[in-house]
Amino acid sequence: MATPPLIILLPDWLEGFLAEAGEVFGAGADRMRLAVGLARRNVEEATGGPFGAAVFEVATGRLIAAGVNRVEACRCSAAHAEVVALSLAQQARGHHDLSAGAACELVTSAEPCAMCLGAVHWSGVRRLLCGARDEDARAVGFDEGDKPPDWPAALGRRGVEVVRDCLRDEARAVLAEYARRGGAIYNPARAGGSARDLDA
Amino acid sequence: MATPPLIILLPDWLEGFLAEAGEVFGAGADRMRLAVGLARRNVEEATGGPFGAAVFEVATGRLIAAGVNRVEACRCSAAHAEVVALSLAQQARGHHDLSAGAACELVTSAEPCAMCLGAVHWSGVRRLLCGARDEDARAVGFDEGDKPPDWPAALGRRGVEVVRDCLRDEARAVLAEYARRGGAIYNPARAGGSARDLDA
Repeated sequence: MATPPLIILLPDWLEGFLAEAGEVFGAGADRMRLAVGLARRNVEEATGGPFGAAVFEVATGRLIAAGVNRVEACRCSAAHAEVVALSLAQQARGHHDLSAGAACELVTSAEPCAMCLGAVHWSGVRRLLCGARDEDARAVGFDEGDKPPDWPAALGRRGVEVVRDCLRDEARAVLAEYARRGGAIYNPARAGGSARDLDA
Repeated sequence: MATPPLIILLPDWLEGFLAEAGEVFGAGADRMRLAVGLARRNVEEATGGPFGAAVFEVATGRLIAAGVNRVEACRCSAAHAEVVALSLAQQARGHHDLSAGAACELVTSAEPCAMCLGAVHWSGVRRLLCGARDEDARAVGFDEGDKPPDWPAALGRRGVEVVRDCLRDEARAVLAEYARRGGAIYNPARAGGSARDLDA
């Protein structure tokens, strides 16, 4: 069996988009505007789901890496915007732990799903800034998975400060636009049958 | 800002290892032996953490993809064996949802962490076969994150059958061997300070 690498390609428009956006961003809304802009462009270009994320140095506002949802395009259900941005930031830093160096924050256009919450925890970021609420994503059909009931507190106990509702309306508008265009809701199919019919 | 792809390389030994292992596997222990063998070889070759995983077609036992932990080697905290194996299986199948086609199972040498539980859910696998318990991984120092209290039931409600304790002793022995060799426990550093000292 061949063992090709796992490759997640970014959309062609991303490099030009980031060149226009600049390299250093003010705190809060300035950074969120980039994440929501990534999500919006991903919808407009039909290059993935309506989600964008970026990793910044907290203190300086320097952009380290940006990601968008690439689940369908790259045939990878783990290619959520947050996982892409965190992984690219780690590769840019040359270390799997973003706490090894200037403190970083993940800015995401929508609150993380169950998988991405775990990814945030492992990444070493110290702050998580969120746009749309997870109920906004659920409202257009996305499943968010089994998250701890008070996940902001759970992340807080692990040293990750969570800030919510930054430009929530703008972020929600991107979700609505995706739905309006009939974008795919790519939750795994839920075959009606019981797992019991799986006997190997 | 350049926008390189995200790339997770597999170890050089993997292709030869899989060529020797064969293409079709019996149910249960036969498949787990492969996952534990991947974990053990990853430790022996010092190419990653003590975790291996593989995706099989449930009914035929055909191996679709194999993964090992590549967190440190590939500078990517999301590169757990389960995420690598699931993502490679999806790329091999040409679809982000493994439920689109013959039913698949993920066989993992240790129970999934919080992130990987989410990844299992999104992947479209219908069965999860586990070797070591998560307390076995915790016992050598690995953090498993905030998992739902009864995560096998939670996955079950989502159509993923969970089977535990398959070759648990063999899987646990790999964890112990990794610890004996002084392998890195790569949880993100937990800076003692409060997130409050992050003011941007």
